[in-house]
Amino acid sequence: MKMILIISDGIGDAPISKLQSKTPLEYGSFPSLDRLAREGITGIMDPLRPGIPAGSDTAHISLLGENPYSVYKGRGFLEALGVGLELEDGDIGFRVNFATLKNGIVIDRRAGRAPDGIHELADEINNSITLDVPFLFKEATGTRAALVLKGDGLSSNISDSDPHSTDVRPLEVKPLDSSREAAFTAELINDFISKTHMLLNDHKINSKRIGQDMLPSNYLLVRGAGVRPPVLTLKERYGISAACIAATALIRGVAKCYGFDILEVEGMTGEYNTNEENKAKATIKALDSYDFVFMHFKPTDTASHDGDPLMKIKMLKKLDRIVGIILDKLSPDDVIIALTGDHSSPCSIKDHSGEPVPVALWGGRVRIDDVSCFDERICAKGGLGRINATDIIPMLLNQANRIKKFGA
Amino acid sequence: MKMILIISDGIGDAPISKLQSKTPLEYGSFPSLDRLAREGITGIMDPLRPGIPAGSDTAHISLLGENPYSVYKGRGFLEALGVGLELEDGDIGFRVNFATLKNGIVIDRRAGRAPDGIHELADEINNSITLDVPFLFKEATGTRAALVLKGDGLSSNISDSDPHSTDVRPLEVKPLDSSREAAFTAELINDFISKTHMLLNDHKINSKRIGQDMLPSNYLLVRGAGVRPPVLTLKERYGISAACIAATALIRGVAKCYGFDILEVEGMTGEYNTNEENKAKATIKALDSYDFVFMHFKPTDTASHDGDPLMKIKMLKKLDRIVGIILDKLSPDDVIIALTGDHSSPCSIKDHSGEPVPVALWGGRVRIDDVSCFDERICAKGGLGRINATDIIPMLLNQANRIKKFGA
Repeated sequence: MKMILIISDGIGDAPISKLQSKTPLEYGSFPSLDRLAREGITGIMDPLRPGIPAGSDTAHISLLGENPYSVYKGRGFLEALGVGLELEDGDIGFRVNFATLKNGIVIDRRAGRAPDGIHELADEINNSITLDVPFLFKEATGTRAALVLKGDGLSSNISDSDPHSTDVRPLEVKPLDSSREAAFTAELINDFISKTHMLLNDHKINSKRIGQDMLPSNYLLVRGAGVRPPVLTLKERYGISAACIAATALIRGVAKCYGFDILEVEGMTGEYNTNEENKAKATIKALDSYDFVFMHFKPTDTASHDGDPLMKIKMLKKLDRIVGIILDKLSPDDVIIALTGDHSSPCSIKDHSGEPVPVALWGGRVRIDDVSCFDERICAKGGLGRINATDIIPMLLNQANRIKKFGA
Repeated sequence: MKMILIISDGIGDAPISKLQSKTPLEYGSFPSLDRLAREGITGIMDPLRPGIPAGSDTAHISLLGENPYSVYKGRGFLEALGVGLELEDGDIGFRVNFATLKNGIVIDRRAGRAPDGIHELADEINNSITLDVPFLFKEATGTRAALVLKGDGLSSNISDSDPHSTDVRPLEVKPLDSSREAAFTAELINDFISKTHMLLNDHKINSKRIGQDMLPSNYLLVRGAGVRPPVLTLKERYGISAACIAATALIRGVAKCYGFDILEVEGMTGEYNTNEENKAKATIKALDSYDFVFMHFKPTDTASHDGDPLMKIKMLKKLDRIVGIILDKLSPDDVIIALTGDHSSPCSIKDHSGEPVPVALWGGRVRIDDVSCFDERICAKGGLGRINATDIIPMLLNQANRIKKFGA
């Protein structure tokens, strides 16, 4: 018996007046999502606690089994792990943006969102800059990057340099406690920022960008210092092998902490254009080699952040096709599937919110309920009631008869 | 976006045979409560945990956001704060009853419930009694009062003098641990009781009471030692301003701990005769000055303690009028309202019980469900499922978009 966890990012929504006060899930037609609900058991799920909006990092820590209020240690480590940097315990990870600084003022936090030349600039930073400790730097999607400080005597308890707004000075990074480690790490990051600024500002790639009427990517904004969250891998905790199919660096990072192998899929972009058929096929194929496959679908959340309910419906149709392909290929006797989201993201507020998400379990010996639609309101009447994201992994393992009794 | 929390004390009940096995909420007709349910989302809520009867103190600590199993430190401090005494951290608060002692035996724990002269007796106690530490004493409703011991070296870990029954001797107050602080505090209270007994017994007010065939209020029963519960105010935790409209001292005390301003309302008594129209209007008006308004309605619980379901229905009609006035004046685009109770109080047992209470949320972007009645059994089918009282504040803040994401 194999297990599949399908997460549609930001899937939950709120009633939208121009959709006749329905949510995108309620308004659109999604025959395969509905089939999964009809042939399965449904409910609603809180990523963290009722009313608390979850970040993607804390939501996935929770979905993969641990209480993030106990183990979450910042996003930077997860992001750095996700872009493929090698991290060891004790390393500090950071999120980085290439930005544009003019006369000491941040005029664009993302350097016009133009990634041109970012790869070469990242190489140059790795080759030319030296700090008092070893470091790793790597570009990610767009103008994003990740930084890792390695070695002893470091602390993640330092502030961000990112002012989170424009037309202001970047912030000086400061220690957030009185420890020697925090002071040392803050100093290292300030040193890194000033050295890279000198390097980037004079770099020929930026002369070229300016020549092409682009903003120079001449300054690094650093934020989200984090260390490894102390979680057990699924292998350590449950003795199962697990694979992750996800385009988003952060999600890959969380999955790596839980010991998932990260699978590459052609055409998987994490964007609106992602190849859903390849993702579905890769998920099915991965069951040959793994006990547990976690497939993450990003663009539903992107549509919410863009405030575009019709695009969200379009992306839900992509998700529907993924689920359709999977259900057509697999038998409920051989697999247990959970479909849910990591949090709600109402298009009306263009951000994460604290309402629960719908959840459905299909396969195994689930007590099929009378819910025959997959959406926020109908699933609230389902046989699972209201559960927490940390319940998902034990529930899948239970259906697969792969979880140990507690007690005797 | 503003927030309103309406608590009807002891609102939950159990089926009553002479009401055709319905609860008071089910039996009566409450059009505005039903409107709130019909246009909102409903559920059931546990004040503490399923099956555990909550005190009014622990239930309100929970409703206003913190887990009372972690932060509850006794009722006395809350009661003393609620009657208007000024307390500092480290002070110990006590509940006090004026009682009648005859030949060393408690013959009435409430001195015949006659408050005549109590105010003057309280003044006399403050003016004439001295202890080894400073103290404050104040009469409350009926023959109740509150006492505060101030200064260093005190402990709330001492026993009650109140025997909780009549025709027995009052109890000696004893330290409940071996600390010097507990021994010292117990000694202070025994000293206070014996000094006040001498003062009260010989007082002309009590001669007058006896002359009028009333029981003398000649002895103080002291109980419920407590210190400040370590809770953050709503301003500290969420950056919001908050006002409380409540007649009951204990509720005011809890609200003060959470940083609420206490508003006075003409005709608000906390009794059957309370002026519901003024309470409703005050709630609406408070929204001009505050982000969050908490309105507490006591008499539903009083009717339960009196074992009087018809009176409870009458009081629910008062609540219905309050809700009606509020809904008529406000738009769901501007406000999010939660209506619920602090605990169930079945008329059949005349006390608090461990069943959940119904809850409804109205306004904001709530996922309106198909429940169109506000009562214990129908709300159990609502879209919120079964939640905990500590979820209420985050859920209101979430709908008002005033809560921070956890994670990134």
